[in-house]
Amino acid sequence: MEAGERMERVNLAERLASVDDLWSPRTIAAVNDYDVKLVKVNGEFVWHRHEETDELFLVLKGTVTIKLRDRDMRLGAGEIFVVPRGVEHCPFADGEAHILLLEPRGTVNTGNVRDGRTEAGEQPI
Amino acid sequence: MEAGERMERVNLAERLASVDDLWSPRTIAAVNDYDVKLVKVNGEFVWHRHEETDELFLVLKGTVTIKLRDRDMRLGAGEIFVVPRGVEHCPFADGEAHILLLEPRGTVNTGNVRDGRTEAGEQPI
Repeated sequence: MEAGERMERVNLAERLASVDDLWSPRTIAAVNDYDVKLVKVNGEFVWHRHEETDELFLVLKGTVTIKLRDRDMRLGAGEIFVVPRGVEHCPFADGEAHILLLEPRGTVNTGNVRDGRTEAGEQPI
Repeated sequence: MEAGERMERVNLAERLASVDDLWSPRTIAAVNDYDVKLVKVNGEFVWHRHEETDELFLVLKGTVTIKLRDRDMRLGAGEIFVVPRGVEHCPFADGEAHILLLEPRGTVNTGNVRDGRTEAGEQPI
């Protein structure tokens, strides 16, 4: 980030209130070449992996299960899980949940897979 | 992060409960070469800047003011502020507050300044 650019406070609840779509990450802050994104989820996403990067999930509301091939990682509000690069995972939520994501700019939400929900989350809110 | 390394859930409240020191960031998660840290604060820190990196603050509890040379940025729980690289700032809290920090591994808490609280937050909890 350049000095003077977007030097503003970001209120997570306010930003989430403006998100209607599910599984559509919105960028709310930048730290160097990493983006912080918010996403609302419900139901099951798609199995995928990110070959080039770890991906951090911080659950803000609800419960999210990060399905891995050998186990399920169930996360409540205030819990973080980092999916290592190259590890297949499939996020799942039984009811609406809100997640903060952290990953390098341009990371595609479906990783190595392309489907109707594929996007890089570069739409700010 | 390497696959299989620290593939664990991190509960922010549990980790914070194990922190006694103020102004001493503890690393709780890693995303590539970035660290996520937790820090308890109270009172005023030291004016400093990070020449090489932006620094993200997410307030988890209490109220934190990021003093800048031309304004104060007052943050409540659930609010993020990113201090751009090179911008002098001084965190202040009137009462205990808890912060999640995100910055590249090895970032020193006092930036360009050295004092008795200087550390790189590489002590895990």
